[in-house]
Amino acid sequence: MKSMLIKIFVITVLCALNNYLLGQQNDSRPKKIADEILLHSTAYKNLKTLCKDVGPRLSGSAGAALAIEKTIQMMRDAGADTAYLQPCMVTHWVRGTKEKAYALSAGRKITIAATALGNSVGTSAKGLKRNVIEVKSMDELKNIGFAAKDKIIFFNIPMNPLYIETFKAYGESGIARRSGPAEAAKLGAAGVIVRSLSSNTDHHPHTGTTVYQKNTDSIPAIAISTKDADWLSNELRKNKDLQFYFRTNCKLLPDALSYNVIGEIKGSDIPQEIITVGGHLDSWDLAEGAHDDGTGCMQSIEVLRALKATGTKPRRTIRAVLFMNEENGGGGGKAYLDSAVAKKEKHIFALESDAGGFTPRAFGVDGSEETIAKIKLWLPYLKPYYVTEIKTGGGGSDIAPLKKINTVLAGYIPDSQRYFDVHHAATDIFEAVSERELNLGSVNISILVYLVSEYGL
Amino acid sequence: MKSMLIKIFVITVLCALNNYLLGQQNDSRPKKIADEILLHSTAYKNLKTLCKDVGPRLSGSAGAALAIEKTIQMMRDAGADTAYLQPCMVTHWVRGTKEKAYALSAGRKITIAATALGNSVGTSAKGLKRNVIEVKSMDELKNIGFAAKDKIIFFNIPMNPLYIETFKAYGESGIARRSGPAEAAKLGAAGVIVRSLSSNTDHHPHTGTTVYQKNTDSIPAIAISTKDADWLSNELRKNKDLQFYFRTNCKLLPDALSYNVIGEIKGSDIPQEIITVGGHLDSWDLAEGAHDDGTGCMQSIEVLRALKATGTKPRRTIRAVLFMNEENGGGGGKAYLDSAVAKKEKHIFALESDAGGFTPRAFGVDGSEETIAKIKLWLPYLKPYYVTEIKTGGGGSDIAPLKKINTVLAGYIPDSQRYFDVHHAATDIFEAVSERELNLGSVNISILVYLVSEYGL
Repeated sequence: MKSMLIKIFVITVLCALNNYLLGQQNDSRPKKIADEILLHSTAYKNLKTLCKDVGPRLSGSAGAALAIEKTIQMMRDAGADTAYLQPCMVTHWVRGTKEKAYALSAGRKITIAATALGNSVGTSAKGLKRNVIEVKSMDELKNIGFAAKDKIIFFNIPMNPLYIETFKAYGESGIARRSGPAEAAKLGAAGVIVRSLSSNTDHHPHTGTTVYQKNTDSIPAIAISTKDADWLSNELRKNKDLQFYFRTNCKLLPDALSYNVIGEIKGSDIPQEIITVGGHLDSWDLAEGAHDDGTGCMQSIEVLRALKATGTKPRRTIRAVLFMNEENGGGGGKAYLDSAVAKKEKHIFALESDAGGFTPRAFGVDGSEETIAKIKLWLPYLKPYYVTEIKTGGGGSDIAPLKKINTVLAGYIPDSQRYFDVHHAATDIFEAVSERELNLGSVNISILVYLVSEYGL
Repeated sequence: MKSMLIKIFVITVLCALNNYLLGQQNDSRPKKIADEILLHSTAYKNLKTLCKDVGPRLSGSAGAALAIEKTIQMMRDAGADTAYLQPCMVTHWVRGTKEKAYALSAGRKITIAATALGNSVGTSAKGLKRNVIEVKSMDELKNIGFAAKDKIIFFNIPMNPLYIETFKAYGESGIARRSGPAEAAKLGAAGVIVRSLSSNTDHHPHTGTTVYQKNTDSIPAIAISTKDADWLSNELRKNKDLQFYFRTNCKLLPDALSYNVIGEIKGSDIPQEIITVGGHLDSWDLAEGAHDDGTGCMQSIEVLRALKATGTKPRRTIRAVLFMNEENGGGGGKAYLDSAVAKKEKHIFALESDAGGFTPRAFGVDGSEETIAKIKLWLPYLKPYYVTEIKTGGGGSDIAPLKKINTVLAGYIPDSQRYFDVHHAATDIFEAVSERELNLGSVNISILVYLVSEYGL
């Protein structure tokens, strides 16, 4: 009889544990949150404000300041218990007047649309006119060696269309933009042209940061459109003596004071455990930063709104954070970590949405095997809204510093097919965002944040 | 010893069977086909020709005739063994001069963008001016009864944003467009306004076919944009005496002769078994019919091109079919069946792509449980390209008639979030299509067609 009682006890405990782990799948709140977002989300309207009333908002610019003002109000309108600004020092790079570029080939002058690479130095006021050497890889540059001296190096490395995940192609071909100018400078090159990192063949140059190295010259660098890159490559095949002229007027100013914008709902039960959900508020100066990363910011604010509107009282503290300076410095992410360390905050989970406001596919999680296994148990809540997979590894560059304090990091992974059509180019505008796709992202992000808050990790 | 030999024999047979069913997953050709498409697809370029050089192509129009001419050439360029036109009789509805519509409310005249519903009758030359009764459902119309007499009935039934699959919302709310005029006519209504079937809130009216019933009047019917529908609903709340005027100049002409465009690769081994892959060539007259269904047509042609370019010799006969008259009559699909029956053709499989050229999600299959189970075994070939599911049930309206001759039917299911933003509206243009999304559709469709051809069903 006693052994029977023990058996019943054990079974009861196991059932309770099972319910705790799996029975969370009977929670009706995720659907309630999803319905609220699908019916009443303000993310799309807010995105329009950010894109059309603010527009470009590179760190240190007037646009960035206005974006801070507008979005802290959005945090309050969403129902944040508290909304505040967190100071951070940011890279302050200015483009100056519009770039000029042309090719001189066989007596013809062909105008080329160009954009200075982010954080690059400008040319002299006269500009730079040199012969061009095209390379198709970083290895090819090494083979050229000092023949690169005083030349313009043209990195013509297309994104590989065979990669289904476009971020993989971006990572691989992106080495030219990130490191090309520094590597070319080591060989004495005078300047650099990079083929835009675009999965489209079109006329838009795409900007993005380049990183110089200490002890080598900082040389001017531009991106040209994929169509112009194809043209230039073809022309160089016919005429090795082609000369290329460009003038950039950009410069790096001293770091400036700016802010992360933070909205918070205090946890009802375990307020000391913090969950961060964020995107980055700064954008490149060529367009409206709609997908990069207006959508991630608006989705983060929407998490707060949806929780409040559904009367959800999260057990843990939830912070929507709009990071400043992701594009060309990372000052916002660094300041967020520094503050967390100084205040001895316990950050259990941070989720970033910085891959565009496209239709959902997955989350990527950087945590222990057990944590990832636990999050996978929640997939039944997400699958109806198209997050069908939890991938291992993920995060975002703003939340990456939190790794130092053992925070579980996650990244929202929407479909990536259209991202590099608009990324860092003039085409990244409000009209490129679909309201339903944006909302489905908000749904998945809100549900995951809620589940972590409710059940822990 | 003998029993051992029997055992070995049985195991060998089972292994062979297993390889036949599962070992198809070691086929390297699907990846070869996919790579070819991702690197060299001509579908996007062809789509541009269809959208920009041809444009709208409603059945019976000059645009439709030009589309036939252009696309049979595309079939030849793709490498079809044979390309030919298949005659069919099509509905010939013409819009006439542009519609006019306005509301008269409290002394103000407010112009409204309107589109006549497809196949609807026009108003008199003077147009129609009446009071308006708004209904939110078909049931509400029934409750109104004969109060509808001589009124304009305004069906204001939004697509339900809670449905994640937008086609479900379209099916449900679409009853107003399809049956609303016929039902209103039974109650003596003078005309009908329907809220556009759009998942966007914008200023574009979306057209589409309405179906009258025998023995009731055919009354004029228009669609207005979702924004105007919201405005009208709000205005009617304030002013029941509001009058609405519209004039439509459309009419149905006698059925016209037109053609399906067919390109074929003859099977190398079992040529008598036919696999059809298709979309519909006709489009509404308001835009370029890019997603509806230029993309499905171009993907179908791409199947032939990709097979030829990779030197794939399909065992069964593959036909790319661009059906005419899907939008407002179905003449092309009917003629295709009639020809198949007359020629005693054996159609084992037909796949239609008519849900837009968006990023892939699934295929839907209408066949026996065994057939669906077999196709599911092929998922490992499709998953790398985002078709992650084989759903039960599917097809397309052009291939639906083939059900009569026991053909297994399938439909390509891309992500549906953006489809009803552009569907049947002026926004369905080439620029709304992403090249990579289009290509991923072609990849999945081509692989599935290849697998059916190679391994049968």
